[in-house]
Amino acid sequence: MTGTVGIGMIGARFMGKAHTNAWRQASIFFDPPLKARLRVVCARSPRVHEFARRWGWEKSTTDWREVIEDPEVHIVDICSPNNTHHDIAIAALEAGKAVCCEKPLAMNSEEARRMVEAARRSGKLHTVWFNYRRVPAIALARQLIEEGRIGRVYHFRALYLQDWTMDPAVPLVWRMDKQVAGSGVTGDLHSHIVDLSNYLAGEIESVAGVSRIFVSERERPEGGRARVEIEDASVFLCQYANGAIGHFEATRFANGRKNGNIFEINGEYGSLYFNLEDMSRLWYFDSREPKHIQGWKRISVWEEVHPYMNRWWVPGCAIGYEHTFANQAADVLFALAEGKPVPPTFEDGLKCQLVLDAVLEACQTGQWVKVKKAE
Amino acid sequence: MTGTVGIGMIGARFMGKAHTNAWRQASIFFDPPLKARLRVVCARSPRVHEFARRWGWEKSTTDWREVIEDPEVHIVDICSPNNTHHDIAIAALEAGKAVCCEKPLAMNSEEARRMVEAARRSGKLHTVWFNYRRVPAIALARQLIEEGRIGRVYHFRALYLQDWTMDPAVPLVWRMDKQVAGSGVTGDLHSHIVDLSNYLAGEIESVAGVSRIFVSERERPEGGRARVEIEDASVFLCQYANGAIGHFEATRFANGRKNGNIFEINGEYGSLYFNLEDMSRLWYFDSREPKHIQGWKRISVWEEVHPYMNRWWVPGCAIGYEHTFANQAADVLFALAEGKPVPPTFEDGLKCQLVLDAVLEACQTGQWVKVKKAE
Amino acid sequence: MTGTVGIGMIGARFMGKAHTNAWRQASIFFDPPLKARLRVVCARSPRVHEFARRWGWEKSTTDWREVIEDPEVHIVDICSPNNTHHDIAIAALEAGKAVCCEKPLAMNSEEARRMVEAARRSGKLHTVWFNYRRVPAIALARQLIEEGRIGRVYHFRALYLQDWTMDPAVPLVWRMDKQVAGSGVTGDLHSHIVDLSNYLAGEIESVAGVSRIFVSERERPEGGRARVEIEDASVFLCQYANGAIGHFEATRFANGRKNGNIFEINGEYGSLYFNLEDMSRLWYFDSREPKHIQGWKRISVWEEVHPYMNRWWVPGCAIGYEHTFANQAADVLFALAEGKPVPPTFEDGLKCQLVLDAVLEACQTGQWVKVKKAE
Amino acid sequence: MTGTVGIGMIGARFMGKAHTNAWRQASIFFDPPLKARLRVVCARSPRVHEFARRWGWEKSTTDWREVIEDPEVHIVDICSPNNTHHDIAIAALEAGKAVCCEKPLAMNSEEARRMVEAARRSGKLHTVWFNYRRVPAIALARQLIEEGRIGRVYHFRALYLQDWTMDPAVPLVWRMDKQVAGSGVTGDLHSHIVDLSNYLAGEIESVAGVSRIFVSERERPEGGRARVEIEDASVFLCQYANGAIGHFEATRFANGRKNGNIFEINGEYGSLYFNLEDMSRLWYFDSREPKHIQGWKRISVWEEVHPYMNRWWVPGCAIGYEHTFANQAADVLFALAEGKPVPPTFEDGLKCQLVLDAVLEACQTGQWVKVKKAE
Repeated sequence: MTGTVGIGMIGARFMGKAHTNAWRQASIFFDPPLKARLRVVCARSPRVHEFARRWGWEKSTTDWREVIEDPEVHIVDICSPNNTHHDIAIAALEAGKAVCCEKPLAMNSEEARRMVEAARRSGKLHTVWFNYRRVPAIALARQLIEEGRIGRVYHFRALYLQDWTMDPAVPLVWRMDKQVAGSGVTGDLHSHIVDLSNYLAGEIESVAGVSRIFVSERERPEGGRARVEIEDASVFLCQYANGAIGHFEATRFANGRKNGNIFEINGEYGSLYFNLEDMSRLWYFDSREPKHIQGWKRISVWEEVHPYMNRWWVPGCAIGYEHTFANQAADVLFALAEGKPVPPTFEDGLKCQLVLDAVLEACQTGQWVKVKKAE
Repeated sequence: MTGTVGIGMIGARFMGKAHTNAWRQASIFFDPPLKARLRVVCARSPRVHEFARRWGWEKSTTDWREVIEDPEVHIVDICSPNNTHHDIAIAALEAGKAVCCEKPLAMNSEEARRMVEAARRSGKLHTVWFNYRRVPAIALARQLIEEGRIGRVYHFRALYLQDWTMDPAVPLVWRMDKQVAGSGVTGDLHSHIVDLSNYLAGEIESVAGVSRIFVSERERPEGGRARVEIEDASVFLCQYANGAIGHFEATRFANGRKNGNIFEINGEYGSLYFNLEDMSRLWYFDSREPKHIQGWKRISVWEEVHPYMNRWWVPGCAIGYEHTFANQAADVLFALAEGKPVPPTFEDGLKCQLVLDAVLEACQTGQWVKVKKAE
Repeated sequence: MTGTVGIGMIGARFMGKAHTNAWRQASIFFDPPLKARLRVVCARSPRVHEFARRWGWEKSTTDWREVIEDPEVHIVDICSPNNTHHDIAIAALEAGKAVCCEKPLAMNSEEARRMVEAARRSGKLHTVWFNYRRVPAIALARQLIEEGRIGRVYHFRALYLQDWTMDPAVPLVWRMDKQVAGSGVTGDLHSHIVDLSNYLAGEIESVAGVSRIFVSERERPEGGRARVEIEDASVFLCQYANGAIGHFEATRFANGRKNGNIFEINGEYGSLYFNLEDMSRLWYFDSREPKHIQGWKRISVWEEVHPYMNRWWVPGCAIGYEHTFANQAADVLFALAEGKPVPPTFEDGLKCQLVLDAVLEACQTGQWVKVKKAE
Repeated sequence: MTGTVGIGMIGARFMGKAHTNAWRQASIFFDPPLKARLRVVCARSPRVHEFARRWGWEKSTTDWREVIEDPEVHIVDICSPNNTHHDIAIAALEAGKAVCCEKPLAMNSEEARRMVEAARRSGKLHTVWFNYRRVPAIALARQLIEEGRIGRVYHFRALYLQDWTMDPAVPLVWRMDKQVAGSGVTGDLHSHIVDLSNYLAGEIESVAGVSRIFVSERERPEGGRARVEIEDASVFLCQYANGAIGHFEATRFANGRKNGNIFEINGEYGSLYFNLEDMSRLWYFDSREPKHIQGWKRISVWEEVHPYMNRWWVPGCAIGYEHTFANQAADVLFALAEGKPVPPTFEDGLKCQLVLDAVLEACQTGQWVKVKKAE
């Protein structure tokens, strides 16, 4: 297949901007056989029309069903709030569209399971925007693991540290609204690092956790004060099926940390370390080198041989946050032409959700909780 | 003024890609009153037509005069090799076009001086793509200096370290061809750090230097071997009008350094440090803080208050190499609407060239050389 | 009081070397009114006599009761294995000696409680060698907290990462022998970071944890194989009395991490970060600075104004691991002359032990466990 | 030979403290066949007697000739100001003593040459306290070079950055007095990095430089103001016999830099980087590794296999500034027993001095200056 593929995007805020850019840039920089055509963007606010003008969408609408009914739309790209994913995704799949859905896949694993079923029934491409799998340094981490450079895994530890809600004057935006977001940092931040753990370290079997609401009441953007019902911070321990142990922290109250998506994996033969605040680097320790020259190697992941990097600039030229989305969009455009799946699929989204559900339960009950199986 | 402004770009290789992207992204992300219209791209090779298709140019040509004669072109963007800048820029200015010219401005200061004169006569906008001035961290460095945080300058030291030509099998591409590039690392790399020195540290009065050709013969891309006549590496010392002293190194033989554009400025009240390989950071030392909490502060330049960053993503989301061009393109699009100049102007390009000329002479003669005045 | 104070040290292996050096160096570099006199060293092995010769002890013995009975001994310094601390410390206190005891204070909190009681009854100086409180950077962290620079604490996270037992060929030395060490990384490594948490972040109220034995059988140094009964790795979550939440990891299976005693504290006004592998630095983030110059400041803790540093060299000259012991020894020598206590006291040792006991129980039971009160 | 060797030390200020500690610690930690006996210390000030008491010297004197005449003295350790080295060293050598002399070896190369001659005539051990050769990371750098890991050298760049004299209120101590120190940062700081260049990069053939006096008048410690005649800062370029080029900067006006002895060497196969402010690390880039895992490796030089480290603590336990002197003292004590030389010898001191003389001349004349040959 060559030509264009119509995108219908639902959601037109921060992620809408990121996705729009991703589709545009992927189509140019990767020169895929199918190019993205920005067919229609949808959002509940009439500001969507101005958004469409500025960002180059052919059409705009405030009714997401129009997107799904549009025969020119081949991919439905969902970046609206979490509580909308389930209905839109299933409707889109049933309408025969490929679906690219923002993370977390759903409000909970029941929703996610139904979405997986719909995806399977449809036979269409489905992927979740866990964009960090396409940070070249993280894709390289996966490659090094597959090359056998780490061996048996002993430890995985991950942090996702931010500080943007520390000020009590920050209003209760949708990400802090339990009805819309489902959870706080669990769905927003833990989802990313749990997906990376699934990608890099293996299957989590059980968890224990604790969470906190540090600011208990906030102003609503539309006026009026509301009790905060979602967690500002959450930490959990876990046991892996492979015998490893791990711990995870997600917080919006780590002063000075802006986008501190950090992980380290320690294995039998070596270790890997990554920090999104220094996203061009992967640190690698290899304990099989001669002892006197062992050390943590700071690999600058901007060589042509590194994942995705031959599509961008030349060695030494950093790419940034936005490119992780473009890399995924490109993979979608290639896969669609070739009829291949694009991980993380909805199954991967479900696996992540099952861990998140267990974490929420563990925090609530003060018990170790077993993670349910995806199948 | 609002609407679009026609771009005519000459050059369609690596910089052509970077500039194309810059014009596109600036028009979207900065939403300037004048948007760039990718009117025509020109290159000597017929591959330019494929380039135009892929990157979205309306027209393509192999004759640069067509670009200048095109009444739909308002800005001539020159990113062809160094030995073409002079003729194209002057022709474009005489045709009443604004001109954005790649660095170094010219082959030497005589050419640069004539280009400045043409620019003044024309009254049109002129700027040089010293894109690193628009790295947000470097723009912030300038801001901190203007806030008086450094005081009297004692030292400036700058490195531009690369390693891509170490392998003798690398062919003699145009950047290594004296007839086309004029010089080696002097025009290519020193030009950047000398411009940053002009921007941040003050006027250089005299220089002493030494250069090296480490690989004396290379294969030509078109076949056949040729003597290498441009310098692989060059180091120079300098004295500033303000009493400071400095040193500069540019090399393509620093194994492991890919894009190591590094500088440090030490002043009376504080110091600043930057490394392009970690481009989101500016390091700042303030000697007026209480002694026990003094230290080098790693400022992550990705807050909304930082130069250009409110146009991109949110705090913690890095931008990359390509954005420096987009930032400059945006400044051009705003300035054109407002009738303002866009530094670095051709005068700044000339000032840089005068230092480069002195460096080349110093390396050749083994003498300290005074830098000629721009006026 | 001036003159000398006789030291009787029990234990003559790695810590014996560190303590000997500490007493010697403290007496010279700090020039305290009371100088340490290396009166007698004791160990079970007859190698102690050679140790005494080399390291400058007047006498040596293989019977610790001789140390306690020696009227020339004023300070009993215990650095023998954990299972000996209780008996020796109580005997020494009852004999009217000051006691400096290695960490962890005891095998468990029952022992520790009896040691506290003996210390109180005796009225003598008692301190625990949690030497890391005397890393100048950590002492500075405490000072910044006391200056109010962090405010309310939200998060504490700490790691103590090593890799020296990963190789299954490493024999079952005493630190891996349950009868002698009591526990694995809990007593050895968690004890340090829990003490730092007590020092910097506040009181821990409850914990949940999980631990692992990755290598289940090892060679005994004296020959023969033995089941490993102590944990190689342990991670735990905690809730603080002040509302903060934390997590801790201690492991000897973090490939590439040698002495990774790392902590971060996030508070209302700022954050602090420390890594023992870069022990001259304290990283400080201050969210009350002007936004555009906020950042993590790398304070090199080697200025004369920094804790202990005026006793060593000049700014820019690093001290190392051994100096943390010397700093504590100096504090003991000054305090003894002045009749003052030297934190961490046995009460601090008990507080730490109570957390460790809870961690061990939590790991064993898979339950959240409340930490018992010291009083 | 076993037993003790009498040390007679001349100079009892900062370096006197460092050397005293070095002799003591080397004798204990390295357990050499010959132990240092602190026989006599000499200084012009009567404060020397108190120094002797505190630091454990048997005798003290204000007349250096007494040291040389003392038959119990076998090693004369010179750490008095630069203008005293020549006379004392020659007298000591003629009296049949081994001589350990602080750097720079002499006031100029004429003096240094006579000292070399005296050393040769005497047949006694002679060494210069270029202590940084014994930073384990630097000794490792040399080892890696000898293992052929760098190959042909293209670049050497070195900085020695401090800021302690920026405040004009700092008095004119001896290091700033031309009659006593001979030069400013050239003898004090360049001497160190030139020695490292001789050790690691090869022979310097010619130099060009510029220096500055930023504060032209200061208070004398004894009262009264004086013109400053020594340079606060100096930068120079150099050409190596092996074809490499280099540049060096030494300054006391680099705000925020305390002991910034930094160098990088770029060679055919790899590169090395060191910074004394992070002295436990050596950074190593190896361009012969597979491309996708190339990177700068941060080798923490604290393993048992690393130079000198098996004598100190265990992996992960940093040593500091003072240990560089102890390492050299230990080498002297072993070499004396074995009748071997201890580099850097006086010949190495002369080689360094010849470069420094050329640098001073180059700064004064504004010419490239050839470095004279040692032989």
